Amino acid sequence: MKVIKAHEIDGMEKAYRTALMNSITGYKPLNLLGTVDRDNHTNLCIVSSVFHMGSNPPLLGMVIRPERPHNDTLKNIKMTGEYTLSNVMCDFYKQAHQTSASYESGVSEFNKCGFDKYYQEGFKSPFVRQSSLKIGLRLQEMIDVKLNGTTIVIGRIELIIANDDVIQANGDVDHITAGSAAGSGLDAYFKTVLLDKLAYAKPERTTESIL
Amino acid sequence: MKVIKAHEIDGMEKAYRTALMNSITGYKPLNLLGTVDRDNHTNLCIVSSVFHMGSNPPLLGMVIRPERPHNDTLKNIKMTGEYTLSNVMCDFYKQAHQTSASYESGVSEFNKCGFDKYYQEGFKSPFVRQSSLKIGLRLQEMIDVKLNGTTIVIGRIELIIANDDVIQANGDVDHITAGSAAGSGLDAYFKTVLLDKLAYAKPERTTESIL
Repeated sequence: MKVIKAHEIDGMEKAYRTALMNSITGYKPLNLLGTVDRDNHTNLCIVSSVFHMGSNPPLLGMVIRPERPHNDTLKNIKMTGEYTLSNVMCDFYKQAHQTSASYESGVSEFNKCGFDKYYQEGFKSPFVRQSSLKIGLRLQEMIDVKLNGTTIVIGRIELIIANDDVIQANGDVDHITAGSAAGSGLDAYFKTVLLDKLAYAKPERTTESIL
Repeated sequence: MKVIKAHEIDGMEKAYRTALMNSITGYKPLNLLGTVDRDNHTNLCIVSSVFHMGSNPPLLGMVIRPERPHNDTLKNIKMTGEYTLSNVMCDFYKQAHQTSASYESGVSEFNKCGFDKYYQEGFKSPFVRQSSLKIGLRLQEMIDVKLNGTTIVIGRIELIIANDDVIQANGDVDHITAGSAAGSGLDAYFKTVLLDKLAYAKPERTTESIL
């Protein structure tokens, strides 16, 4: 067993700490974030920081790193007030990973990484045609986190485009049918195997499978 | 293909919308959140909203729902300024799910759900002994999100306890060796299969496997 204390974390070599801290939470959702600038130039980048914030209103959060000259995403969201998320599928995780390369500002990762744009009325930002689940979001709030200069972007889900059978009768997204990939850290990609679905937990009974 | 627009989302039946919005982001990390109250009574609950916020300083965020009378977690974190996260493993996902039941305030889910407490110097809050990866965090900031009454809790990682071989030579946590489970929505549990690990992406080359 390995016990790592605060002063040892402080003393870690940068690459080691980055790898550890990016993978320590567990598996992560993988999505492709689509935006446009004022001239409708498109931008696409893989994000693993999207999280559920609430169902009513339907809100998602995501963490965006400090703005850099070649980082168009945050600028674009501020300017247009909208963005899209398209699921990363096991079929194309390599192309999705390639969107994390530091292409110059104005270069579209759609073209460079082999993704087709898909447009739907109401959103200027493109979705990824290949994805089986596409979400259109309207910006609600940007929270600047002073602790480290990141920004938490909160958006409201205003459009969902799903392939047949991806959304089940009860509303659940079936990510195995959707072909979604899971991530860990900055470089690991996984497919999944269903262990179980469990009934709503109540104090007076033990956990029951609903498969 | 199914296209769902904003007014259709607004009109969804509550259970359907809750299922959809909780599962739409993709796979989620699963952790058990441990806290204590002022009298050192312990509390444990499964959380799927933990996200990476930064490596230096090492910060994790998580979303906590509005405070309710039987919800001790937020109260405890405010009071003690600390909390623990222990990974949910495929071996005990059922017991982990059971911690989501609404036990009365003051009842410890450790006892009710079959988990053993593990204490480490520097933290009053217990970890889950069975977990292969344990993280101790110090509260840094609580952000009240006015949009829906949730709270984003940001903590700094000050202690890591990992079983042998869980942390690889480069710093990456190997969640397959760790036996970590992935989640989706409020009720689905998964194990994973590694697809690939990919080299740092650069504009001038195509994606390469580093397995």
